[in-house]
Amino acid sequence: MLYLIGLGLWDEKDLSLKALQILKKCEEIFVESYTSLWYGNLESLGIKAKKIGRGELEEGVGKILDLAREKEVAILVPGDPLVATTHSSILTEAVKKGVKVEIVHNASIVSAVAEIGLHIYKFGKIASISRHYSEYPYDILKQNKSIEAHTLFLLDLEPEPMNAKDGLKRLLEIEERRKEGLVKREDLCIVASKLGSKDKKVYFGKIEDMLKKNLEDVPAIIILPSALHFSEEEVLKAYSSS
Amino acid sequence: MLYLIGLGLWDEKDLSLKALQILKKCEEIFVESYTSLWYGNLESLGIKAKKIGRGELEEGVGKILDLAREKEVAILVPGDPLVATTHSSILTEAVKKGVKVEIVHNASIVSAVAEIGLHIYKFGKIASISRHYSEYPYDILKQNKSIEAHTLFLLDLEPEPMNAKDGLKRLLEIEERRKEGLVKREDLCIVASKLGSKDKKVYFGKIEDMLKKNLEDVPAIIILPSALHFSEEEVLKAYSSS
Repeated sequence: MLYLIGLGLWDEKDLSLKALQILKKCEEIFVESYTSLWYGNLESLGIKAKKIGRGELEEGVGKILDLAREKEVAILVPGDPLVATTHSSILTEAVKKGVKVEIVHNASIVSAVAEIGLHIYKFGKIASISRHYSEYPYDILKQNKSIEAHTLFLLDLEPEPMNAKDGLKRLLEIEERRKEGLVKREDLCIVASKLGSKDKKVYFGKIEDMLKKNLEDVPAIIILPSALHFSEEEVLKAYSSS
Repeated sequence: MLYLIGLGLWDEKDLSLKALQILKKCEEIFVESYTSLWYGNLESLGIKAKKIGRGELEEGVGKILDLAREKEVAILVPGDPLVATTHSSILTEAVKKGVKVEIVHNASIVSAVAEIGLHIYKFGKIASISRHYSEYPYDILKQNKSIEAHTLFLLDLEPEPMNAKDGLKRLLEIEERRKEGLVKREDLCIVASKLGSKDKKVYFGKIEDMLKKNLEDVPAIIILPSALHFSEEEVLKAYSSS
Protein backbone atom coordinates (compact mmCIF):
# COMPACT_ATOMS: atom_id res chain seq x y z
CA MET A 1 0.00 0.00 0.00
CA LEU A 2 1.21 3.49 -0.84
CA TYR A 3 0.08 6.38 1.32
CA LEU A 4 0.38 9.86 -0.14
CA ILE A 5 0.23 12.05 2.95
CA GLY A 6 -0.12 15.82 3.12
CA LEU A 7 2.11 17.71 5.56
CA GLY A 8 0.01 20.84 5.49
CA LEU A 9 1.30 24.38 5.41
CA TRP A 10 3.91 24.85 8.04
CA ASP A 11 5.34 22.31 10.47
CA GLU A 12 4.97 18.83 11.98
CA LYS A 13 2.06 19.97 14.15
CA ASP A 14 -0.02 20.37 11.00
CA LEU A 15 -0.01 16.59 10.55
CA SER A 16 -3.39 15.02 11.23
CA LEU A 17 -4.04 12.34 13.83
CA LYS A 18 -4.88 10.00 10.96
CA ALA A 19 -1.57 10.70 9.24
CA LEU A 20 0.31 10.01 12.46
CA GLN A 21 -1.53 6.75 12.99
CA ILE A 22 -0.67 5.59 9.46
CA LEU A 23 2.97 6.69 9.71
CA LYS A 24 3.41 4.59 12.84
CA LYS A 25 2.67 1.43 10.88
CA CYS A 26 4.65 2.33 7.75
CA GLU A 27 7.83 0.43 7.03
CA GLU A 28 9.28 2.96 4.60
CA ILE A 29 8.69 6.70 4.75
CA PHE A 30 9.88 9.21 2.19
CA VAL A 31 9.54 12.97 2.44
CA GLU A 32 9.87 15.36 -0.45
CA SER A 33 10.21 19.08 -0.06
CA TYR A 34 11.08 20.62 -3.37
CA THR A 35 7.57 21.47 -4.50
CA SER A 36 6.97 23.57 -1.40
CA LEU A 37 8.86 24.94 1.58
CA TRP A 38 8.10 23.20 4.83
CA TYR A 39 9.51 24.07 8.23
CA GLY A 40 8.70 21.01 10.30
CA ASN A 41 10.79 18.47 12.17
CA LEU A 42 9.45 14.96 11.72
CA GLU A 43 11.93 13.41 14.14
CA SER A 44 10.35 15.31 17.02
CA LEU A 45 7.32 13.08 16.41
CA GLY A 46 9.46 9.95 16.24
CA ILE A 47 9.09 9.70 12.47
CA LYS A 48 12.12 8.62 10.49
CA ALA A 49 11.76 9.66 6.90
CA LYS A 50 14.21 9.56 3.98
CA LYS A 51 14.44 12.84 2.09
CA ILE A 52 14.01 12.56 -1.63
CA GLY A 53 14.56 15.16 -4.31
CA ARG A 54 12.65 15.79 -7.50
CA GLY A 55 14.88 13.53 -9.63
CA GLU A 56 14.59 10.57 -7.27
CA LEU A 57 10.86 10.97 -7.02
CA GLU A 58 10.23 11.42 -10.72
CA GLU A 59 12.65 8.76 -11.95
CA GLY A 60 12.53 6.47 -8.96
CA VAL A 61 8.77 6.30 -8.67
CA GLY A 62 8.80 2.80 -10.19
CA LYS A 63 10.99 1.52 -7.35
CA ILE A 64 8.82 3.13 -4.70
CA LEU A 65 5.72 1.62 -6.27
CA ASP A 66 7.38 -1.82 -6.32
CA LEU A 67 8.14 -1.44 -2.61
CA ALA A 68 4.54 -0.44 -2.01
CA ARG A 69 3.32 -3.74 -3.47
CA GLU A 70 4.76 -5.58 -0.50
CA LYS A 71 5.13 -3.07 2.27
CA GLU A 72 3.35 -0.15 3.87
CA VAL A 73 5.07 2.83 2.23
CA ALA A 74 4.37 6.52 2.72
CA ILE A 75 5.39 9.58 0.75
CA LEU A 76 5.04 12.79 2.73
CA VAL A 77 4.41 15.91 0.73
CA PRO A 78 4.01 19.56 1.83
CA GLY A 79 0.47 20.92 1.53
CA ASP A 80 -2.27 18.68 0.13
CA PRO A 81 -0.56 15.80 -1.69
CA LEU A 82 -2.09 16.04 -5.16
CA VAL A 83 -1.90 19.76 -5.79
CA ALA A 84 1.59 19.57 -7.32
CA THR A 85 1.55 17.90 -10.73
CA THR A 86 4.56 15.71 -9.81
CA HIS A 87 2.50 13.99 -7.17
CA SER A 88 -0.55 13.62 -9.29
CA SER A 89 1.70 11.69 -11.71
CA ILE A 90 2.60 9.31 -8.86
CA LEU A 91 -1.10 8.63 -8.55
CA THR A 92 -1.34 8.08 -12.31
CA GLU A 93 1.58 5.62 -12.26
CA ALA A 94 0.20 3.76 -9.26
CA VAL A 95 -3.20 3.43 -10.85
CA LYS A 96 -1.61 2.12 -14.09
CA LYS A 97 0.50 -0.42 -12.19
CA GLY A 98 -2.37 -1.51 -10.01
CA VAL A 99 -0.71 -0.41 -6.75
CA LYS A 100 -3.19 0.58 -4.06
CA VAL A 101 -2.97 4.20 -2.96
CA GLU A 102 -4.56 5.97 -0.05
CA ILE A 103 -4.52 9.75 0.05
CA VAL A 104 -4.37 11.58 3.36
CA HIS A 105 -5.34 15.15 2.66
CA ASN A 106 -4.12 18.24 4.44
CA ALA A 107 -4.34 22.01 4.14
CA SER A 108 -3.20 23.57 0.89
CA ILE A 109 -2.51 27.14 -0.14
CA VAL A 110 -5.32 26.63 -2.68
CA SER A 111 -7.93 27.02 0.09
CA ALA A 112 -5.77 28.67 2.78
CA VAL A 113 -5.51 31.74 0.57
CA ALA A 114 -9.04 32.64 1.77
CA GLU A 115 -7.35 33.72 5.01
CA ILE A 116 -6.42 37.05 3.43
CA GLY A 117 -10.07 38.02 3.13
CA LEU A 118 -10.96 37.21 -0.46
CA HIS A 119 -13.78 34.80 -1.28
CA ILE A 120 -12.59 31.46 -2.60
CA TYR A 121 -15.47 31.47 -5.09
CA LYS A 122 -14.04 34.45 -6.88
CA PHE A 123 -10.73 32.77 -7.76
CA GLY A 124 -10.08 31.48 -11.26
CA LYS A 125 -7.24 29.24 -12.45
CA ILE A 126 -4.06 29.08 -10.40
CA ALA A 127 -0.84 30.12 -12.14
CA SER A 128 2.79 29.40 -11.29
CA ILE A 129 5.57 31.88 -11.95
CA SER A 130 8.70 30.04 -12.93
CA ARG A 131 12.34 31.16 -13.02
CA HIS A 132 12.43 30.19 -16.67
CA TYR A 133 10.91 32.91 -18.80
CA SER A 134 7.40 31.88 -19.75
CA GLU A 135 4.34 33.91 -20.60
CA TYR A 136 2.04 31.25 -19.22
CA PRO A 137 1.18 33.16 -15.99
CA TYR A 138 0.22 36.14 -18.12
CA ASP A 139 -2.02 33.96 -20.29
CA ILE A 140 -3.74 32.58 -17.20
CA LEU A 141 -4.20 36.12 -15.84
CA LYS A 142 -5.76 37.12 -19.15
CA GLN A 143 -8.18 34.19 -18.99
CA ASN A 144 -9.12 34.95 -15.38
CA LYS A 145 -9.60 38.65 -16.10
CA SER A 146 -11.97 37.73 -18.91
CA ILE A 147 -14.28 36.07 -16.36
CA GLU A 148 -13.61 38.61 -13.56
CA ALA A 149 -11.76 36.10 -11.39
CA HIS A 150 -8.95 36.69 -8.90
CA THR A 151 -5.63 35.12 -9.91
CA LEU A 152 -3.44 33.30 -7.39
CA PHE A 153 0.21 33.06 -8.42
CA LEU A 154 2.45 30.45 -6.82
CA LEU A 155 6.18 31.08 -7.02
CA ASP A 156 8.95 28.80 -8.21
CA LEU A 157 11.08 27.13 -5.55
CA GLU A 158 13.99 25.96 -7.64
CA PRO A 159 16.92 26.37 -7.56
CA GLU A 160 15.96 28.63 -4.65
CA PRO A 161 12.58 30.02 -3.55
CA MET A 162 11.42 33.05 -5.53
CA ASN A 163 10.15 35.93 -3.41
CA ALA A 164 7.11 38.04 -4.17
CA LYS A 165 9.10 41.01 -5.45
CA ASP A 166 10.79 38.85 -8.08
CA GLY A 167 7.42 37.43 -9.01
CA LEU A 168 5.93 40.90 -9.51
CA LYS A 169 8.95 41.97 -11.55
CA ARG A 170 8.52 38.95 -13.76
CA LEU A 171 4.88 39.86 -14.39
CA LEU A 172 5.87 43.44 -15.31
CA GLU A 173 8.58 42.05 -17.59
CA ILE A 174 6.03 39.95 -19.48
CA GLU A 175 3.73 42.98 -19.66
CA GLU A 176 6.53 44.94 -21.28
CA ARG A 177 6.78 42.37 -24.04
CA ARG A 178 3.09 41.69 -24.46
CA LYS A 179 1.80 45.23 -23.91
CA GLU A 180 -1.80 44.10 -23.39
CA GLY A 181 -2.20 46.27 -20.29
CA LEU A 182 -3.02 43.42 -17.91
CA VAL A 183 -0.37 44.30 -15.31
CA LYS A 184 0.03 47.98 -14.57
CA ARG A 185 2.31 49.45 -11.91
CA GLU A 186 -0.67 51.21 -10.33
CA ASP A 187 -2.79 48.03 -10.13
CA LEU A 188 -3.71 46.70 -6.71
CA CYS A 189 -2.19 43.43 -5.61
CA ILE A 190 -1.90 41.28 -2.54
CA VAL A 191 1.27 39.62 -1.36
CA ALA A 192 1.19 37.05 1.42
CA SER A 193 3.97 35.02 2.93
CA LYS A 194 4.23 32.17 5.42
CA LEU A 195 0.46 31.66 5.55
CA GLY A 196 -0.53 29.09 8.14
CA SER A 197 2.20 30.19 10.54
CA LYS A 198 2.60 32.78 13.29
CA ASP A 199 5.02 34.65 11.02
CA LYS A 200 2.53 35.22 8.23
CA LYS A 201 2.42 38.58 6.52
CA VAL A 202 -0.19 40.04 4.21
CA TYR A 203 0.39 43.19 2.16
CA PHE A 204 -2.19 44.99 0.09
CA GLY A 205 -1.42 47.89 -2.20
CA LYS A 206 -0.29 49.04 -5.61
CA ILE A 207 2.33 46.98 -7.40
CA GLU A 208 4.64 50.02 -7.58
CA ASP A 209 4.45 50.47 -3.80
CA MET A 210 4.97 46.76 -3.21
CA LEU A 211 8.24 46.92 -5.15
CA LYS A 212 9.57 49.42 -2.59
CA LYS A 213 8.95 47.07 0.33
CA ASN A 214 11.16 44.38 1.73
CA LEU A 215 9.32 41.29 0.53
CA GLU A 216 11.86 38.58 1.07
CA ASP A 217 9.85 36.10 3.12
CA VAL A 218 9.19 32.76 1.49
CA PRO A 219 7.08 30.85 0.69
CA ALA A 220 5.06 33.70 -0.74
CA ILE A 221 2.12 34.11 -3.05
CA ILE A 222 0.85 36.97 -5.17
CA ILE A 223 -2.76 37.69 -5.95
CA LEU A 224 -3.92 40.00 -8.70
CA PRO A 225 -7.56 40.55 -7.76
CA SER A 226 -10.45 41.24 -10.04
CA ALA A 227 -12.79 44.05 -8.96
CA LEU A 228 -12.93 44.02 -5.16
CA HIS A 229 -16.09 44.29 -3.14
CA PHE A 230 -16.06 47.11 -0.59
CA SER A 231 -16.09 44.62 2.31
CA GLU A 232 -13.21 42.62 0.84
CA GLU A 233 -11.14 45.77 0.56
CA GLU A 234 -12.02 46.67 4.14
CA VAL A 235 -10.73 43.35 5.48
CA LEU A 236 -7.65 43.49 3.32
CA LYS A 237 -6.81 46.93 4.65
CA ALA A 238 -7.43 46.01 8.28
CA TYR A 239 -5.61 42.73 7.95
CA SER A 240 -2.51 43.72 6.07
CA SER A 241 0.85 44.63 7.50
CA SER A 242 2.26 48.03 6.63
CA MET B 1 -8.62 35.14 21.07
CA LEU B 2 -10.83 33.45 18.50
CA TYR B 3 -9.55 30.31 16.80
CA LEU B 4 -11.22 29.31 13.56
CA ILE B 5 -10.27 25.68 13.23
CA GLY B 6 -10.74 23.39 10.24
CA LEU B 7 -12.08 19.89 10.87
CA GLY B 8 -10.97 18.54 7.52
CA LEU B 9 -12.94 16.24 5.29
CA TRP B 10 -14.20 13.32 7.28
CA ASP B 11 -13.83 12.63 11.01
CA GLU B 12 -12.06 13.60 14.22
CA LYS B 13 -8.84 11.91 13.10
CA ASP B 14 -8.48 14.58 10.43
CA LEU B 15 -7.81 17.16 13.14
CA SER B 16 -4.22 18.33 13.23
CA LEU B 17 -1.93 18.05 16.24
CA LYS B 18 -1.90 21.84 16.35
CA ALA B 19 -5.69 22.02 16.43
CA LEU B 20 -5.79 19.51 19.28
CA GLN B 21 -3.22 21.45 21.26
CA ILE B 22 -5.23 24.67 20.87
CA LEU B 23 -8.55 23.00 21.70
CA LYS B 24 -7.10 21.72 24.97
CA LYS B 25 -6.59 25.26 26.19
CA CYS B 26 -9.86 26.70 24.88
CA GLU B 27 -12.54 27.67 27.39
CA GLU B 28 -15.42 27.71 24.92
CA ILE B 29 -15.69 25.51 21.85
CA PHE B 30 -18.39 25.74 19.20
CA VAL B 31 -18.83 23.39 16.27
CA GLU B 32 -20.91 24.16 13.21
CA SER B 33 -21.86 21.57 10.69
CA TYR B 34 -24.39 23.02 8.31
CA THR B 35 -21.98 24.21 5.62
CA SER B 36 -20.63 20.70 5.17
CA LEU B 37 -21.33 17.15 6.32
CA TRP B 38 -18.87 15.84 8.87
CA TYR B 39 -18.82 12.36 10.36
CA GLY B 40 -16.56 12.77 13.35
CA ASN B 41 -16.99 12.35 17.08
CA LEU B 42 -15.23 15.07 19.02
CA GLU B 43 -16.01 13.54 22.39
CA SER B 44 -13.83 10.56 21.58
CA LEU B 45 -10.92 13.04 21.72
CA GLY B 46 -12.18 14.52 24.99
CA ILE B 47 -13.40 17.68 23.27
CA LYS B 48 -16.66 19.15 24.50
CA ALA B 49 -18.12 21.42 21.86
CA LYS B 50 -21.47 23.16 21.63
CA LYS B 51 -23.24 22.63 18.31
CA ILE B 52 -24.40 25.78 16.59
CA GLY B 53 -26.61 26.18 13.56
CA ARG B 54 -26.46 28.72 10.78
CA GLY B 55 -28.79 31.18 12.50
CA GLU B 56 -26.88 31.16 15.75
CA LEU B 57 -23.59 31.58 13.96
CA GLU B 58 -24.74 34.34 11.65
CA GLU B 59 -26.79 36.30 14.16
CA GLY B 60 -24.87 35.35 17.28
CA VAL B 61 -21.44 36.10 15.92
CA GLY B 62 -21.30 39.33 17.92
CA LYS B 63 -21.72 37.41 21.18
CA ILE B 64 -19.04 34.91 20.26
CA LEU B 65 -16.68 37.71 19.36
CA ASP B 66 -17.37 39.41 22.71
CA LEU B 67 -16.53 36.15 24.47
CA ALA B 68 -13.34 35.92 22.43
CA ARG B 69 -12.17 39.27 23.77
CA GLU B 70 -11.74 37.75 27.21
CA LYS B 71 -11.44 34.03 26.71
CA GLU B 72 -9.85 31.48 24.44
CA VAL B 73 -12.72 30.58 22.11
CA ALA B 74 -12.73 28.16 19.18
CA ILE B 75 -15.16 27.65 16.33
CA LEU B 76 -14.74 24.31 14.62
CA VAL B 77 -15.75 24.16 10.99
CA PRO B 78 -15.76 21.25 8.51
CA GLY B 79 -13.08 21.48 5.80
CA ASP B 80 -10.80 24.50 5.71
CA PRO B 81 -12.43 27.22 7.82
CA LEU B 82 -12.64 30.11 5.37
CA VAL B 83 -13.91 28.36 2.29
CA ALA B 84 -17.58 28.85 3.21
CA THR B 85 -18.62 32.48 2.91
CA THR B 86 -20.36 32.41 6.32
CA HIS B 87 -17.03 31.83 7.98
CA SER B 88 -15.21 34.37 5.99
CA SER B 89 -17.75 36.89 7.31
CA ILE B 90 -16.80 35.89 10.88
CA LEU B 91 -13.27 36.89 9.94
CA THR B 92 -14.56 40.17 8.52
CA GLU B 93 -16.53 40.92 11.70
CA ALA B 94 -13.61 40.01 13.94
CA VAL B 95 -11.25 42.23 11.99
CA LYS B 96 -13.73 45.14 12.18
CA LYS B 97 -14.21 44.68 15.93
CA GLY B 98 -10.50 44.30 16.55
CA VAL B 99 -10.79 40.75 17.94
CA LYS B 100 -7.70 38.65 17.37
CA VAL B 101 -8.24 35.61 15.19
CA GLU B 102 -6.00 32.67 14.48
CA ILE B 103 -6.85 30.36 11.62
CA VAL B 104 -5.97 26.67 11.81
CA HIS B 105 -6.23 25.34 8.29
CA ASN B 106 -7.22 21.85 7.25
CA ALA B 107 -8.01 19.90 4.10
CA SER B 108 -10.77 21.24 1.87
CA ILE B 109 -12.63 19.78 -1.07
CA VAL B 110 -11.14 22.68 -3.05
CA SER B 111 -7.77 20.89 -3.19
CA ALA B 112 -8.87 17.34 -2.29
CA VAL B 113 -10.76 17.17 -5.59
CA ALA B 114 -7.35 16.52 -7.23
CA GLU B 115 -7.68 12.99 -5.83
CA ILE B 116 -9.91 12.03 -8.74
CA GLY B 117 -7.06 12.51 -11.20
CA LEU B 118 -7.66 15.99 -12.64
CA HIS B 119 -5.01 18.67 -12.37
CA ILE B 120 -5.86 21.40 -9.90
CA TYR B 121 -4.41 23.99 -12.28
CA LYS B 122 -7.11 23.27 -14.80
CA PHE B 123 -10.00 24.20 -12.51
CA GLY B 124 -11.78 27.52 -12.85
CA LYS B 125 -14.27 29.12 -10.46
CA ILE B 126 -16.13 26.90 -8.01
CA ALA B 127 -19.94 26.90 -8.23
CA SER B 128 -22.56 25.84 -5.71
CA ILE B 129 -25.84 24.26 -6.75
CA SER B 130 -28.58 25.41 -4.43
CA ARG B 131 -32.05 23.99 -3.77
CA HIS B 132 -33.48 27.35 -4.68
CA TYR B 133 -33.69 27.73 -8.43
CA SER B 134 -30.80 29.86 -9.57
CA GLU B 135 -28.95 30.02 -12.87
CA TYR B 136 -25.75 31.07 -11.16
CA PRO B 137 -24.03 27.64 -11.51
CA TYR B 138 -24.79 27.73 -15.24
CA ASP B 139 -23.27 31.20 -15.52
CA ILE B 140 -20.11 30.03 -13.76
CA LEU B 141 -19.94 26.99 -16.05
CA LYS B 142 -20.22 29.30 -19.03
CA GLN B 143 -17.38 31.47 -17.73
CA ASN B 144 -15.18 28.44 -17.05
CA LYS B 145 -15.89 26.92 -20.45
CA SER B 146 -14.82 30.16 -22.08
CA ILE B 147 -11.34 29.71 -20.58
CA GLU B 148 -11.28 25.89 -20.94
CA ALA B 149 -11.41 25.26 -17.21
CA HIS B 150 -12.94 22.36 -15.30
CA THR B 151 -15.92 23.31 -13.12
CA LEU B 152 -16.33 21.94 -9.60
CA PHE B 153 -19.91 22.04 -8.33
CA LEU B 154 -20.57 21.85 -4.59
CA LEU B 155 -24.07 20.78 -3.57
CA ASP B 156 -26.49 22.43 -1.17
CA LEU B 157 -26.82 20.88 2.29
CA GLU B 158 -30.01 22.51 3.45
CA PRO B 159 -32.62 21.53 4.45
CA GLU B 160 -31.04 18.19 3.62
CA PRO B 161 -27.94 17.29 1.61
CA MET B 162 -28.46 17.27 -2.14
CA ASN B 163 -27.09 14.22 -3.93
CA ALA B 164 -25.24 14.26 -7.24
CA LYS B 165 -28.20 13.05 -9.26
CA ASP B 166 -30.32 15.96 -8.10
CA GLY B 167 -27.45 18.29 -8.88
CA LEU B 168 -27.16 16.96 -12.43
CA LYS B 169 -30.91 17.21 -12.92
CA ARG B 170 -30.79 20.81 -11.80
CA LEU B 171 -28.09 21.59 -14.36
CA LEU B 172 -30.16 19.96 -17.13
CA GLU B 173 -33.19 21.92 -15.95
CA ILE B 174 -31.31 25.20 -16.31
CA GLU B 175 -30.06 24.08 -19.71
CA GLU B 176 -33.65 23.54 -20.79
CA ARG B 177 -34.46 27.13 -19.99
CA ARG B 178 -31.28 28.72 -21.23
CA LYS B 179 -30.72 26.47 -24.27
CA GLU B 180 -27.08 27.55 -24.70
CA GLY B 181 -25.87 23.97 -25.13
CA LEU B 182 -23.51 24.00 -22.14
CA VAL B 183 -24.92 20.86 -20.48
CA LYS B 184 -25.78 18.02 -22.83
CA ARG B 185 -26.96 14.58 -21.74
CA GLU B 186 -24.07 12.98 -23.64
CA ASP B 187 -21.42 15.20 -22.01
CA LEU B 188 -18.83 13.56 -19.77
CA CYS B 189 -18.96 14.30 -16.08
CA ILE B 190 -17.40 13.11 -12.86
CA VAL B 191 -19.29 12.48 -9.67
CA ALA B 192 -17.43 11.86 -6.42
CA SER B 193 -18.76 11.26 -2.94
CA LYS B 194 -17.27 10.95 0.53
CA LEU B 195 -13.81 12.03 -0.65
CA GLY B 196 -11.23 11.76 2.11
CA SER B 197 -12.85 8.63 3.56
CA LYS B 198 -12.60 4.88 3.03
CA ASP B 199 -16.12 4.98 1.55
CA LYS B 200 -15.27 7.37 -1.26
CA LYS B 201 -16.66 6.73 -4.70
CA VAL B 202 -15.72 8.25 -8.02
CA TYR B 203 -17.83 7.84 -11.15
CA PHE B 204 -16.86 8.97 -14.63
CA GLY B 205 -19.19 8.83 -17.61
CA LYS B 206 -21.89 10.53 -19.60
CA ILE B 207 -24.47 12.55 -17.71
CA GLU B 208 -27.26 10.37 -19.15
CA ASP B 209 -25.57 7.21 -17.81
CA MET B 210 -24.94 8.84 -14.46
CA LEU B 211 -28.66 9.50 -14.08
CA LYS B 212 -29.28 5.73 -14.24
CA LYS B 213 -26.96 5.01 -11.33
CA ASN B 214 -27.68 5.02 -7.64
CA LEU B 215 -25.90 8.19 -6.60
CA GLU B 216 -27.27 8.80 -3.17
CA ASP B 217 -24.06 9.14 -1.17
CA VAL B 218 -23.43 12.54 0.38
CA PRO B 219 -21.49 14.74 0.56
CA ALA B 220 -20.99 14.62 -3.17
CA ILE B 221 -19.49 16.84 -5.82
CA ILE B 222 -19.97 17.08 -9.56
CA ILE B 223 -17.30 18.07 -12.04
CA LEU B 224 -17.99 19.10 -15.59
CA PRO B 225 -14.55 18.87 -17.15
CA SER B 226 -13.16 20.90 -20.01
CA ALA B 227 -11.28 18.91 -22.68
CA LEU B 228 -9.52 16.03 -20.93
CA HIS B 229 -5.95 15.03 -21.57
CA PHE B 230 -5.53 11.38 -22.55
CA SER B 231 -3.68 10.61 -19.29
CA GLU B 232 -6.39 12.29 -17.21
CA GLU B 233 -9.02 10.16 -18.86
CA GLU B 234 -6.91 7.05 -18.28
CA VAL B 235 -6.72 7.69 -14.52
CA LEU B 236 -10.37 8.59 -14.33
CA LYS B 237 -11.30 5.32 -16.00
CA ALA B 238 -9.01 3.20 -13.84
CA TYR B 239 -9.99 4.99 -10.70
CA SER B 240 -13.73 5.15 -11.00
CA SER B 241 -16.26 2.74 -9.61
CA SER B 242 -18.63 1.07 -12.04
